[in-house]
Amino acid sequence: MLERVVRILEAFTPTDRALTVGEVSRRAGLPTTTGSRMVADMVEHGLLTRDDDRRVRVGTRLWELASRASPTVSLRELAMPVLEELHRAVGHHAQLGVLDGEQVLFVERLSADQAVVNYTRIAARLPLHMSSSGLVLLAHAPAELQERVLAGPLARLTPATPTDPGELRRRLADVRRDGFVVCPGYLHPEATGIAVPVRDEHRRVAAAVSVIVPNDDRARDHVPGLAAAARRIEQRLAAS
Amino acid sequence: MLERVVRILEAFTPTDRALTVGEVSRRAGLPTTTGSRMVADMVEHGLLTRDDDRRVRVGTRLWELASRASPTVSLRELAMPVLEELHRAVGHHAQLGVLDGEQVLFVERLSADQAVVNYTRIAARLPLHMSSSGLVLLAHAPAELQERVLAGPLARLTPATPTDPGELRRRLADVRRDGFVVCPGYLHPEATGIAVPVRDEHRRVAAAVSVIVPNDDRARDHVPGLAAAARRIEQRLAAS
Repeated sequence: MLERVVRILEAFTPTDRALTVGEVSRRAGLPTTTGSRMVADMVEHGLLTRDDDRRVRVGTRLWELASRASPTVSLRELAMPVLEELHRAVGHHAQLGVLDGEQVLFVERLSADQAVVNYTRIAARLPLHMSSSGLVLLAHAPAELQERVLAGPLARLTPATPTDPGELRRRLADVRRDGFVVCPGYLHPEATGIAVPVRDEHRRVAAAVSVIVPNDDRARDHVPGLAAAARRIEQRLAAS
Repeated sequence: MLERVVRILEAFTPTDRALTVGEVSRRAGLPTTTGSRMVADMVEHGLLTRDDDRRVRVGTRLWELASRASPTVSLRELAMPVLEELHRAVGHHAQLGVLDGEQVLFVERLSADQAVVNYTRIAARLPLHMSSSGLVLLAHAPAELQERVLAGPLARLTPATPTDPGELRRRLADVRRDGFVVCPGYLHPEATGIAVPVRDEHRRVAAAVSVIVPNDDRARDHVPGLAAAARRIEQRLAAS
């Protein structure tokens, strides 16, 4: 039963926020009669809502229940004033990501109107090897996870996306030594991601803070400001 | 079954993010054996997670599923650059609220480090009559909802909280005429809330944007900036 609830919720994505009952059922792999009954049940309990045109959406009540006590909310709230200042200084995109499974999950993103392209959204995921946040988190992840990720498959989005396990291994060592990573054009030819780790009071890497800026000679100039932002988030974590 | 899932999720609050299975069961009104079995089931599907010390929390997976396609996410994303600028200009707290049932639900809040006291959090609710956002939303709500709210009970948090139905009715008319509301000390003696409506392309009030500032003579100075922010959010809504 819970399995089906999760499959129904998984049918909705940032680009497909409103679906017909038929679409929900098909995506969840359920017969339409079952899907239709479950959707009605979930609507009744506020987990889903129905539009005026009968299309189905994730319910505000579910968002509320999931957000008000979520494990990411305290990290996000502590980081937010720092992320705002970073965003003001850098423009474009500033974001906060955590390791979840074998991917980076973005818990916050601030974007400017005229910002360079970016693939992340709030609550969106990216593979670890192709994003700056992912490489920071992978560099400090357990060896077992590193091996699993390096064993592939390693998808390539642009000619610059690193997909050679040996090269990636060297990049991870560089990240640990340098304390930051610069990823020009890994996700899109016009964008550079830069990320630094955020450590908790036990010096474990708890998150990555990153900016996405144009892919040009000045991208690296943002490293010191990004590192300073990470230190400030760490101080706030330690003080909380 | 879904009823129980919702009751279990309702056990978690912004101040009680980690609970024992016993606490979850008690708050959900379930026998511990039932609560324990359901928690295990929800942990297995990522709706809940267990801490190192066996306490239970809302799962990151649930947050992700609820957030990436939530009905509030597009409003929030459109409003965010404007809210950031407003927050930079005003300091303290800037927030975005929507009407949900008989309360205001805050979908975003930006806070400065040295900000004046504020009771709202992301995904938190307040009664309509005691907050500036709530009064804006109530002023433009269906007459039926207005009557239900004015019929009470109308809780009082400070001597300034308006609880007289006649006075509230006049306030609502003022809000419709003026296009803003200033609420000095309604929630806390030291804080003033100021809110303005945000209208969708059909000129229906879709949200309230508000700031919380110190309760002093300069609070009203923020009205023009707040109104300008609302206009910019409306333009972004119309263009989306």
